[in-house]
Amino acid sequence: MFSISPFDSALFCELLSDTEAALLLGDEARIDAMLRVESELALAQADCGLIPAEAATAIARAAAELPLSAIKLASGTGAAGVPVPALVKALKQALSADQARWVHFGATSQDIVDTALVLNCRELIAVFEQRLSGIVARLAKLARAHRHTLLAGRTRTQQAVPMNFGFKVANWLAPLLRQQERLQQLKPRLLKVQLAGAVGTLAAMGERAPAIAERLAERLELAPGRNWHTQRDSLVELADWLSMTTGALGKIGQDWLWLSQTEVGEVTFTNGGGSSTMPQKCNPVNAETLVALARHNAGQVGQMHQAMVQEHERSGSAWTQEWLSLPPMLISTAVALRHARDALDHLVVNTARMQANLSLYHGVIFAEAATFALAREMPRDQADELVKAACQQALGGEQHLFELIRKRCGVELQLDELQEHLLEGGATAAWFDDILNTAEHT
Amino acid sequence: MFSISPFDSALFCELLSDTEAALLLGDEARIDAMLRVESELALAQADCGLIPAEAATAIARAAAELPLSAIKLASGTGAAGVPVPALVKALKQALSADQARWVHFGATSQDIVDTALVLNCRELIAVFEQRLSGIVARLAKLARAHRHTLLAGRTRTQQAVPMNFGFKVANWLAPLLRQQERLQQLKPRLLKVQLAGAVGTLAAMGERAPAIAERLAERLELAPGRNWHTQRDSLVELADWLSMTTGALGKIGQDWLWLSQTEVGEVTFTNGGGSSTMPQKCNPVNAETLVALARHNAGQVGQMHQAMVQEHERSGSAWTQEWLSLPPMLISTAVALRHARDALDHLVVNTARMQANLSLYHGVIFAEAATFALAREMPRDQADELVKAACQQALGGEQHLFELIRKRCGVELQLDELQEHLLEGGATAAWFDDILNTAEHT
Amino acid sequence: MFSISPFDSALFCELLSDTEAALLLGDEARIDAMLRVESELALAQADCGLIPAEAATAIARAAAELPLSAIKLASGTGAAGVPVPALVKALKQALSADQARWVHFGATSQDIVDTALVLNCRELIAVFEQRLSGIVARLAKLARAHRHTLLAGRTRTQQAVPMNFGFKVANWLAPLLRQQERLQQLKPRLLKVQLAGAVGTLAAMGERAPAIAERLAERLELAPGRNWHTQRDSLVELADWLSMTTGALGKIGQDWLWLSQTEVGEVTFTNGGGSSTMPQKCNPVNAETLVALARHNAGQVGQMHQAMVQEHERSGSAWTQEWLSLPPMLISTAVALRHARDALDHLVVNTARMQANLSLYHGVIFAEAATFALAREMPRDQADELVKAACQQALGGEQHLFELIRKRCGVELQLDELQEHLLEGGATAAWFDDILNTAEHT
Amino acid sequence: MFSISPFDSALFCELLSDTEAALLLGDEARIDAMLRVESELALAQADCGLIPAEAATAIARAAAELPLSAIKLASGTGAAGVPVPALVKALKQALSADQARWVHFGATSQDIVDTALVLNCRELIAVFEQRLSGIVARLAKLARAHRHTLLAGRTRTQQAVPMNFGFKVANWLAPLLRQQERLQQLKPRLLKVQLAGAVGTLAAMGERAPAIAERLAERLELAPGRNWHTQRDSLVELADWLSMTTGALGKIGQDWLWLSQTEVGEVTFTNGGGSSTMPQKCNPVNAETLVALARHNAGQVGQMHQAMVQEHERSGSAWTQEWLSLPPMLISTAVALRHARDALDHLVVNTARMQANLSLYHGVIFAEAATFALAREMPRDQADELVKAACQQALGGEQHLFELIRKRCGVELQLDELQEHLLEGGATAAWFDDILNTAEHT
Repeated sequence: MFSISPFDSALFCELLSDTEAALLLGDEARIDAMLRVESELALAQADCGLIPAEAATAIARAAAELPLSAIKLASGTGAAGVPVPALVKALKQALSADQARWVHFGATSQDIVDTALVLNCRELIAVFEQRLSGIVARLAKLARAHRHTLLAGRTRTQQAVPMNFGFKVANWLAPLLRQQERLQQLKPRLLKVQLAGAVGTLAAMGERAPAIAERLAERLELAPGRNWHTQRDSLVELADWLSMTTGALGKIGQDWLWLSQTEVGEVTFTNGGGSSTMPQKCNPVNAETLVALARHNAGQVGQMHQAMVQEHERSGSAWTQEWLSLPPMLISTAVALRHARDALDHLVVNTARMQANLSLYHGVIFAEAATFALAREMPRDQADELVKAACQQALGGEQHLFELIRKRCGVELQLDELQEHLLEGGATAAWFDDILNTAEHT
Repeated sequence: MFSISPFDSALFCELLSDTEAALLLGDEARIDAMLRVESELALAQADCGLIPAEAATAIARAAAELPLSAIKLASGTGAAGVPVPALVKALKQALSADQARWVHFGATSQDIVDTALVLNCRELIAVFEQRLSGIVARLAKLARAHRHTLLAGRTRTQQAVPMNFGFKVANWLAPLLRQQERLQQLKPRLLKVQLAGAVGTLAAMGERAPAIAERLAERLELAPGRNWHTQRDSLVELADWLSMTTGALGKIGQDWLWLSQTEVGEVTFTNGGGSSTMPQKCNPVNAETLVALARHNAGQVGQMHQAMVQEHERSGSAWTQEWLSLPPMLISTAVALRHARDALDHLVVNTARMQANLSLYHGVIFAEAATFALAREMPRDQADELVKAACQQALGGEQHLFELIRKRCGVELQLDELQEHLLEGGATAAWFDDILNTAEHT
Repeated sequence: MFSISPFDSALFCELLSDTEAALLLGDEARIDAMLRVESELALAQADCGLIPAEAATAIARAAAELPLSAIKLASGTGAAGVPVPALVKALKQALSADQARWVHFGATSQDIVDTALVLNCRELIAVFEQRLSGIVARLAKLARAHRHTLLAGRTRTQQAVPMNFGFKVANWLAPLLRQQERLQQLKPRLLKVQLAGAVGTLAAMGERAPAIAERLAERLELAPGRNWHTQRDSLVELADWLSMTTGALGKIGQDWLWLSQTEVGEVTFTNGGGSSTMPQKCNPVNAETLVALARHNAGQVGQMHQAMVQEHERSGSAWTQEWLSLPPMLISTAVALRHARDALDHLVVNTARMQANLSLYHGVIFAEAATFALAREMPRDQADELVKAACQQALGGEQHLFELIRKRCGVELQLDELQEHLLEGGATAAWFDDILNTAEHT
Repeated sequence: MFSISPFDSALFCELLSDTEAALLLGDEARIDAMLRVESELALAQADCGLIPAEAATAIARAAAELPLSAIKLASGTGAAGVPVPALVKALKQALSADQARWVHFGATSQDIVDTALVLNCRELIAVFEQRLSGIVARLAKLARAHRHTLLAGRTRTQQAVPMNFGFKVANWLAPLLRQQERLQQLKPRLLKVQLAGAVGTLAAMGERAPAIAERLAERLELAPGRNWHTQRDSLVELADWLSMTTGALGKIGQDWLWLSQTEVGEVTFTNGGGSSTMPQKCNPVNAETLVALARHNAGQVGQMHQAMVQEHERSGSAWTQEWLSLPPMLISTAVALRHARDALDHLVVNTARMQANLSLYHGVIFAEAATFALAREMPRDQADELVKAACQQALGGEQHLFELIRKRCGVELQLDELQEHLLEGGATAAWFDDILNTAEHT
């Protein structure tokens, strides 16, 4: 209706939103899911003998056919602080009095809103899973393609020692595999019916209450939840997962920002943003957006934790807080997954620049490798001292580190050999295989 | 376009959004403001002799007449990471080549986006000011009306000592007066043109650059800003103000939640939300929403502070972060002000319940007052001891504190006198007048 | 050394800190764990034939005996931005040159700091597990004891329908059981060695690298981790768990604040804080602290998510951010668990007040139960109408709801029967048993 | 007492804490300030005739001489949830019964804690002011020194157009000048006495209450505050200021991280952290810490906003939340100011690298300047096209942009002239002078 949030804005829809996900999260999806819950609830209650089967069938039919626009419920939502009373009223109006009396029978508004939310989340999660798999596949392919590409490993903004670019990519991938694992663990806790009545006891449904809750779960293909009106831990766990996912993607985006700087130039994006006045520019828009969304979700996640502090059997304020924070987190995650995929489809690796950057500063980046190589010939402290001194000299002059080392101690270091060692050596090969095997077999 | 955020949802528009404010913040308002900046920029450049006057006039006319829907700019925004290139392109297409070459001359996208944001904020601020005044007036009236109503002051959830309800209301009001003061102080820092060119030097406008920046400011009735592309402190200051405002309203909402509980019942709202199954319920929807929005803004404000950490002359990620956080904060504040006003228009004060609650526990709430009264007759520690003992007895039995005190030391305390003292005494009168005078004369 | 944070302050140590946990988190614990890692690393390297066994033994002995005060490392930590170089230097000084050359061989500072952190966390987690169990046991006992106590269920601050207090307690308990489950799932991801060398390849340890990493893990009884220098997801997952735990306790604390208000008075704490001047006061200090700590952790958790955005192979800034946020979260959780246990040991349930509060407003709280009872005798909408009208009358007058209903339709509702129904009815019994069975058999 | 927080740890004291500031914030400073408030309160009450002058003098003497260690108050603080009752008890014990009865007369614990906090903050603020001035002076000097140094302006991680390094420094400085201005505006709101008694009415001091509050303010050289027990806006404003200050410094730190990367190398720090195994490394520890502290404060600031939501006349939970968040923010700011100063004292500007980086990519960074220069000779769109094409060619080949432009249109662009224009042109000179004049005359 409005376009205040960039997630809802037409202007920003390609940059900061996502049509597929947005349609699963908007008013129509909300209303459809709520009507579906009312419908299945009536059918479950009929299945268990609480309400007449004919009434249930009529309710289900009416719910399926009801032409219910969001704006019609706006005033009722404003008055009640929750959309359900207005929705129930509209549904009842489509029924005879005899049927209408069985709508929403014994349920509370939160039962409907929460279960509908779970249904919407389930669809979103399917989108997440599919996109995550796509990104994992792309990263695995990229890692394999660069199994033998060397670049400068960098710590604390400084070139440290050379490393395998394929392995760097595998390290982008590894947390996403754990995110897939975490998602499998949290789903049984999250994808649960909420059906608990006014204060969580479902008293109004009498002795059939537990059976109805189970039957509703079956119908909706959800797990049977007990009441969780004020036990929001599983929603919070979802929020944590969302923010961890965008965080893992944000780390990749951050690497891309640093790697694609003009002065580094080791990756470029063929879909980079141009500038009207600076023709040479190629702004890494996907990467920037990944970082922005990671930080945005990191800022929202605490809101969901704050909202755990609920008084009594329902906190109107804490529940409202969730409504304000969870939808942005869900869409942010969908958008970030789209940008990551998009960036991977447009990523160009500049191996020449990687090699060139390794040669900055006369080979001092090979200092550690040189030290460890020399440590086979002399005490390590002595090797340390020697390399440190040679580095100082290299940094201040024009000679290559290996030349200076040779002059100091006679040892001739071979660049090729060191590079091969750096590509294969240490745990690179074992850990690379470990990650890739998991990625390629899930 | 979508309705993911409750701020944009038709379903939630009466509960969690606000039409007047939303229209000042949405796509149309964004685009109008950007076009206005392009238009006034051309005119300012013509005023200063940088571009031909005819071209400027043509640009201004085209900008005013351009039928520019947000969705047309979506793809360009997605590609560039910012809407301006697409908007400039559309504007140029409405002009002859000779005129078009002077559109956006020497400016950078951020100049347009930031100045347009400032224009939008200025309109929002006018709404805030007007609503704040309305709330201040209502609170002042309420405070005056209850200048002589006593209720239990409560600290750490416990009844502490009796106090003046009018004074309690004055204390809701006092921070809003400071917010008005802070707003006056921050406006000159915030309401500034951004016109600085690609990296902040405005080099492309040549020697006329400073004059053009000043002329543009004049035309837009803003202060002339120097470049603030990566100096976001004044936007952050606005965000702080927004969150402090909703925080001050959230404190009022929190009080209303506690005061309107079933067991306390000292205030009620005639517009409270009903329940389909619990006819006695009167949910304090406005108050809940005030608390939710206060906590929501408190969660967003840190995002704006995070976004201060920008690299170099423009950080695509940090700037995008602002776009995700500031609009929700602006609308939250507008919505909170509306709810506060609405609640005040429906607030009923139950003085009988205030009096009844003072009588809980056999008068022990008058313990402090009694202690201080007795301290005129005996050493204070002795008075303390005596009242403490009498309180224990009162809490455990059926007799009133004053009766028990009389039995212990012969001093006859008068409830009326103590009440009068509590209503007028201490600093109540002086501070009440101080707050109300400020409120009523600004 | 200083006492800026209340977690470290002597003044606040009983209120906001915890000696047992603090000793596992402070400088001494940090240094001990780092020395242990250096020691076991040397032994693991000797086990795998990388360094001489005698050197390893000497290093282990020196590490065990080194009298290393934190302040000695302060200057080195300040210069390097990490404590390890100074610690390694101190360790080397306790050894002969021949032995010293093998200290920290091929490792990077982050290997030591991160593995030491994991060791410290493991000990903390044992404390958490033990305290959580204690709280679960206490809550289970409390729930059982009040299996037949009725109190007002409250939603959105208003009395809604009566419910079983034992079941309310079971609902405090249920999320803690899920927290126990989540902890078991996250531990294998968290309790891992970090041994990866300068940029994550462990290149400096040559072909023995993977074996050494595994051997070190065995020695420390941790899982063998691959490099996770910039993959912080498992630490973030721990942070999420901490905040969810304090959130679940904060919800209990929030309930206690509302239940122990003067006007509600359904629970009291025999260890409540007194007031020098208000003898009747009994401040619910434990409960307040639980809420404060829940909100504090909810505020910190986003910081850990922000710190996932790391550039390249180590981000000095993001890593430092973790150091600032995780320790407060760990101690907050320990403190919250202590306060929850303490509160439960001092909790008094005032069943008389629960009963009295149910009687406020002439029985209108039984409106839903009455409606559903009447719905057996007449169409539900009619029952709704009738009860709604009777409630209005009851709220405005002096007659009990049941009396008014009887007058309107002749149906005689029995309070005892309704109460029994509310205690047992609906899903209460089934869900109560479900939660308690899990709690009592884990 | 403990060392959980890096702010209190001996291990981290040089990296993440600050002795000067820590001593103004720790237990001793807290206790001294509380005793001072009790002492001046007694004297103010004597001045106004509420308590005997001899008693006041005795209280003041006892408060000055009391040997009060924090740990002695720990148990009382734990029980009451606030340190004042234990402190008052200790003070009374040092006095005769006749004198003791006048200690803390009519005050509430929060009066003492809040006023003491204001006193501590005032001293911290003096430290901030002095350090800010030092940084402003250093930046002004640095800016002047580089009034004629050109470097690449960079937007969205890409080189954009060349700019003046002195002006870049001036832009680091400008927000700090506004922070000085904001601090002057907030001080009168912040540096206020809190003296309001149990529920904010100061009733217990009788008709002399307002006069005593003013007299106490005079004695403490603070502004006379009305009650602000639950009006926390001025503390929040301080927190905002702290976080904006570290944010402005964090932006500088972020620039330093990007400028000092191995591949950029335009600034270096002579105090950079070394690596035991990588002799060439020079980690920008100050800069990293500035970013970490900016993000830390940005994470804390929302906590202070959350704590505005207080119920009634004192919220134990919200007040406790402040205690957990404000001290870390205060020390973070002091530490950040120290690191900024330290970094400026060790900053080396590598003008040769700046010049070399401008030459990357065959002069395409001069594209905008070239376009605007050509736009004097041909229609701007044509110039755009021409330069864009020449850039593509330059980026793909070996020829310099100017050479390619000359070949395409015959115009001979002069690098020197363009550089001079870029150093002086546009608004650089005017805005540089504007900032520097302010910086050098305050």
